[in-house]
Amino acid sequence: MPPEVPPEMPSADALRALRVNRARLWDSIMAMAEIGATAAGGSCRLALTDEDRAGRELFTQWCRESGCDIRVDQLGNIFARYPGRDTGRLPVGMGSHLDTQPHGGKFDGIFGVLAGLEVVRTLHENGIQTAAPLEIIDWTNEEGSRFAPAMLASGVYAGLFEADFALTRADADGRTVGGELQRIGYAGSEPCGAHPLGAFLEAHIEQGPILERHGEVVGVVTGAQGLRWYDITLCGRDSHTGSTPMPGRKDALVAAARLIQDAEHIAGDFAPHAVGTVGELQVRPNSRNTIPGEVRMSLDFRHPDQAALAEMDGQLAQRVDAVRRARGVEITVEEIWHNPPVHFDAKCVAGVQQAADQLGYPNRRMVSGAGHDACQVARKVPTAMIFVPCAGGISHNEAESAEPEHLEAGANTLLHAALNLAGEAGAGGRR
Amino acid sequence: MPPEVPPEMPSADALRALRVNRARLWDSIMAMAEIGATAAGGSCRLALTDEDRAGRELFTQWCRESGCDIRVDQLGNIFARYPGRDTGRLPVGMGSHLDTQPHGGKFDGIFGVLAGLEVVRTLHENGIQTAAPLEIIDWTNEEGSRFAPAMLASGVYAGLFEADFALTRADADGRTVGGELQRIGYAGSEPCGAHPLGAFLEAHIEQGPILERHGEVVGVVTGAQGLRWYDITLCGRDSHTGSTPMPGRKDALVAAARLIQDAEHIAGDFAPHAVGTVGELQVRPNSRNTIPGEVRMSLDFRHPDQAALAEMDGQLAQRVDAVRRARGVEITVEEIWHNPPVHFDAKCVAGVQQAADQLGYPNRRMVSGAGHDACQVARKVPTAMIFVPCAGGISHNEAESAEPEHLEAGANTLLHAALNLAGEAGAGGRR
Repeated sequence: MPPEVPPEMPSADALRALRVNRARLWDSIMAMAEIGATAAGGSCRLALTDEDRAGRELFTQWCRESGCDIRVDQLGNIFARYPGRDTGRLPVGMGSHLDTQPHGGKFDGIFGVLAGLEVVRTLHENGIQTAAPLEIIDWTNEEGSRFAPAMLASGVYAGLFEADFALTRADADGRTVGGELQRIGYAGSEPCGAHPLGAFLEAHIEQGPILERHGEVVGVVTGAQGLRWYDITLCGRDSHTGSTPMPGRKDALVAAARLIQDAEHIAGDFAPHAVGTVGELQVRPNSRNTIPGEVRMSLDFRHPDQAALAEMDGQLAQRVDAVRRARGVEITVEEIWHNPPVHFDAKCVAGVQQAADQLGYPNRRMVSGAGHDACQVARKVPTAMIFVPCAGGISHNEAESAEPEHLEAGANTLLHAALNLAGEAGAGGRR
Repeated sequence: MPPEVPPEMPSADALRALRVNRARLWDSIMAMAEIGATAAGGSCRLALTDEDRAGRELFTQWCRESGCDIRVDQLGNIFARYPGRDTGRLPVGMGSHLDTQPHGGKFDGIFGVLAGLEVVRTLHENGIQTAAPLEIIDWTNEEGSRFAPAMLASGVYAGLFEADFALTRADADGRTVGGELQRIGYAGSEPCGAHPLGAFLEAHIEQGPILERHGEVVGVVTGAQGLRWYDITLCGRDSHTGSTPMPGRKDALVAAARLIQDAEHIAGDFAPHAVGTVGELQVRPNSRNTIPGEVRMSLDFRHPDQAALAEMDGQLAQRVDAVRRARGVEITVEEIWHNPPVHFDAKCVAGVQQAADQLGYPNRRMVSGAGHDACQVARKVPTAMIFVPCAGGISHNEAESAEPEHLEAGANTLLHAALNLAGEAGAGGRR
């Protein structure tokens, strides 16, 4: 389906003046949120459920209405192509995911997909066709709530997981990704990963408080933090809280308390970019009048720089040794995941930066603390991300909230970065 | 049933030379341990089960064979009376409990009952009758494993609980104390608490490491620690571990870690007698990549001095305020139990001290860290306790272990303290 007006090379001024439609973007997000709407104002649209199917149907209908062809790969990833003028160029992808957490919000993922749609709608209504094709992408099962792990289908696309691994992931009721794709009619024929992309841009709410705190409206995301995840077990000695004097105790929880604080101190030593968190902790026997004999806990270290992450790991080992010696408690530390930092493509990041600057949006370069489909895709395709503020940094929560003008700013930035990457250098790229 | 030889006033020298039979005491403890024996070398003889009945039957048979009459009160407390010469004197009780933890040891409670039996056996075989009667006592449901709370029937005896409250306590299957007493044939007619005692002595393994650490064999127990139990709730804010910078976090677990260490510091400020322990702790949402928004934990403070316990409570309030201010975390502290210290009767304690000294046993005055039937009974009857070492201070564990010579020392101390309190001042009381 061709653009409404015949494609032609638009003037640089016309491109530079192009803006998305804030109300249309907002209304689309609100319409999508109705599918699986929760009483508390969020959405529950778990991957490959009937709600996810309904969301996909609405999305693909909108795409078709704006001149796109729909392609679906074997993992159900949707590529809605808005044709380019130059058949030899690889498409520029824009997207994220339409699935949500069980008590999810209206914006996490959805904004990135519908911002891509809004870019295409804006071009389509203005009769503009870029040199490279554009593709609006919905990646399957980003959240991982129904099928673990998260970022599943973008991970297969990037070659991090095998397709068979992904297709056989099962939910709590034993239903598989493959079976559910068949059931909802989104098991495509194209092998996942075969679909070519020249670049990929993902707009997303920040899910953190930094932009809001600084009064900025666009985050130019240069990459994603590296991450090291540990399981730590502390073994002391159970004994009676009343009859065991303080000297000579081997209290695993007091030792764990020291390490919990150490994790915070280590992050402080690598401020401002490091974070360190104990999120999960179990005490045994967990009885009011028994000194804890065992504690198991997680530790999550993140930093955008691989060398800093290695130094944090070294400091952890030293502090564990110190606690072990001071407390007479056995401590084992197992690293269960080491995900190196992701550095987004310099040209893609520059495209986003130029767009935000030219549009006059207060912005900052930042590193994503959370994982996103873009972090997977970046292993294969030149990629960048655009963040917009969300209220209080709250996400994965029905209370997730974002301002229409911030979403508009993110979509305008996406529009001009995509124009730039799709070969329309006059758009936002060079003044 | 009279003693084997006619009762008469024995000579002071004969009394002073009297000793229990180590092998008989040990063999009786081992025989009792066979009832409900566990594969790992302990015993499972939960209150008012068939195993408890079998233990009671063996115990009362042994008592009858040594000249005792058996009385049972409405809570199933057993008073096995060895008659005295002076019908006007109140009996001196010696005892503890025969019930065990689910994975209990052979000694906790059992030693105190069978040490009392061994005292009576020693007197009986030597044809000695004391001025006051002696009574060997088995208190019902000390452990509290099957029916909460612990020290139930001694608590009713002391007037701390109503009999109806105790009789209606139910186990996990809904069976009540009253029903189970009927079932096993130990629902006596005497109102609990009506049975008169002139004094009460409880021998017990220490359940702590102090005697063993100092190479002493008898603990002269002067009382029991007071105890204040708290439930503490810390409310911070859930957020993403990756995208939430360290400044501005409201991590309930880091705040809890500070308080866990504070509890240890407060106990240190009131060394050597204070103890402070967080035994139970739950984290919410307890997810590896979510900053903990809520922590609930217990706190157990103990000290033998009521004023010190009050100061510890005051320090806790100050430290909670400091953490609240420093962390922006809401903290509520609820005191759920405040049990004042128990001070045993000076004359009873002196009787134990004199006996241990005259017998030449290395001993120390100490305060019980754990609760015992004696701590309840002491609210009503002049009471003292005798501790003996147990290996590593380990108790409530199938690995619980005690040396025959230490048990012998405890029983000899009980013998001579009981003789003293029962009117035989020449025994161990005055050189």
